[in-house]
Amino acid sequence: MDYSNFISLLLEGNPRAAARLITFVENNFEAAEEIINSIYEYTGNAYILGITGAPGTGKSTFISTLTKRYVDQGKKIGIICVDPTSPLTGGALLGDRIRMKQNFSLNNVFIRSMANRGQLGGLARATEDAIKILDAYGCDIIIIETVGVGQSEVDIFKSAETVVVLLVPGLGDDIQAIKAGIMEITDIFVVNKMDLPGTDKKVAEIEQMLEFRKSYKYESKDFKDKFAKINQWTPEITKVNSKTGENFDKLLGLIENHKSFLEESGVISNYMKNRIKSETIEILKYKLTKKVEKLIHSDEKIEQYIEKAIKKSLDPYSMADLIIKMLGLEK
Amino acid sequence: MDYSNFISLLLEGNPRAAARLITFVENNFEAAEEIINSIYEYTGNAYILGITGAPGTGKSTFISTLTKRYVDQGKKIGIICVDPTSPLTGGALLGDRIRMKQNFSLNNVFIRSMANRGQLGGLARATEDAIKILDAYGCDIIIIETVGVGQSEVDIFKSAETVVVLLVPGLGDDIQAIKAGIMEITDIFVVNKMDLPGTDKKVAEIEQMLEFRKSYKYESKDFKDKFAKINQWTPEITKVNSKTGENFDKLLGLIENHKSFLEESGVISNYMKNRIKSETIEILKYKLTKKVEKLIHSDEKIEQYIEKAIKKSLDPYSMADLIIKMLGLEK
Repeated sequence: MDYSNFISLLLEGNPRAAARLITFVENNFEAAEEIINSIYEYTGNAYILGITGAPGTGKSTFISTLTKRYVDQGKKIGIICVDPTSPLTGGALLGDRIRMKQNFSLNNVFIRSMANRGQLGGLARATEDAIKILDAYGCDIIIIETVGVGQSEVDIFKSAETVVVLLVPGLGDDIQAIKAGIMEITDIFVVNKMDLPGTDKKVAEIEQMLEFRKSYKYESKDFKDKFAKINQWTPEITKVNSKTGENFDKLLGLIENHKSFLEESGVISNYMKNRIKSETIEILKYKLTKKVEKLIHSDEKIEQYIEKAIKKSLDPYSMADLIIKMLGLEK
Repeated sequence: MDYSNFISLLLEGNPRAAARLITFVENNFEAAEEIINSIYEYTGNAYILGITGAPGTGKSTFISTLTKRYVDQGKKIGIICVDPTSPLTGGALLGDRIRMKQNFSLNNVFIRSMANRGQLGGLARATEDAIKILDAYGCDIIIIETVGVGQSEVDIFKSAETVVVLLVPGLGDDIQAIKAGIMEITDIFVVNKMDLPGTDKKVAEIEQMLEFRKSYKYESKDFKDKFAKINQWTPEITKVNSKTGENFDKLLGLIENHKSFLEESGVISNYMKNRIKSETIEILKYKLTKKVEKLIHSDEKIEQYIEKAIKKSLDPYSMADLIIKMLGLEK
């Protein structure tokens, strides 16, 4: 298929072309390959914000208010809602997104849901490609929202420059609900619904938790090499009211501070490297699996190994090693 | 670590050794490699039954009754409960299993739950290894139970020789709840709770559905090659009452028939091949990913590619292709 027409329209800022191209990369690995290859040079301008929080923390209203602020500054926003647990919870999230869409003009705000439909090459890969499409489409800020259930978010947030985690007063176990892995990659904690009692208690709880946390992303080995001394970012904590917009000026300032920190400290270049590495690993996993599957179903030597395995004289782990040798990959 | 002591005990039929070894293979890929290599020659005697059904179809009672029948025939049974959606639903399933354990002697029936804890190498790989451990342990029949939510079951059932799917009268949407992929690999449909009204209607619904189904596993290309003419198995349908044991004689006969069919038609040898192939593919995926990750984080040439990618002159898909070339795997 020829995607060049869609790509021209995308670069002109056509939202329908963006939507179609995201569908293509979601459903077809070969399409993704071709599309990303064509648009890659036009990417790299968007700032990527990761936002998560347990159910009930008011993510939709928070994102709507934040988006409105950015739109008022003349910015173009992309919102990608990623639900790794779908189809189980896909319905509810989708309804939220439809309501959100009604608040904005299609020209300023592009909203898209992505669910785990067992995509070839994984949801993380498809999300990465959607980010690139919205980047080339001209978004200044791309918000990646997830539902906060664990390892999948951590993978998806690998490309987020600033990660914001939402909590609410009183919910009590929302801190526990957000898995350890998420905590460690959070740059800004936001206590939403600050009009409710217990807001300051929740802020204190987060402060306490931060004292006990074992590591923060800039302390991991990926960030340690060149910039160890200057990589000091202490996760910020703030409280907001998403319904009234209270304290959003402060929040926008904190996001801006974190962005400046990344640039001035040089951390941003490590970020970009890590992002490219993890994307390439995802793509390689898919490609190598395809190769191995093809080989296993057609090679004569492997037929002989399988016969041996059936006779119990060769186990699958040893067979895997023999195939790695066959491929010349022992080292 | 040296597993030889546990393995000797396993081969003597020590249930604690079986439990420990399953924990080892679950948590550690290298342990799995070593353990499976040592026990592989003692496997191949167990018959593997896959059982699934939507929540509410009475899987626990059904499996208890079926297990009791086999125990009365002097057979040793292994039950592996696989929950791909865990930790979300792990608790409920676990409670069921504890109740089930109380009904049986540890010497005749070994029960184990396995959940998706993001294991290295995947849940399907860990389940495969647990099957082998219970096979070497001396189980005559190994029951793999899953919760029936989709693609994960299909992967897990790749090693099951006979797949049984449970339904109940009246539930209405249980047929829809069981995903298309599961339907196609089902050998025997069981309408449980046959004392409830609507049992015959449910049987008729399944019959109707079978008429419309597009394909059945023996019609897939994996089974077509040698045995196309004789691979005729029409999925059976029966109704049972798991509480009273009504119709279990018939069910046991159907399972026995299917087993004979597999052996007499020669399909069984295709099964074994496919099982070994898919196991080896899972293992290779893990090993190749490890290799690629190591390479990407250390190779100098790749550092240069990453610099190019940062400058937007090389996209991750093209970079993946260059790495495949570097590995000598273009073809």
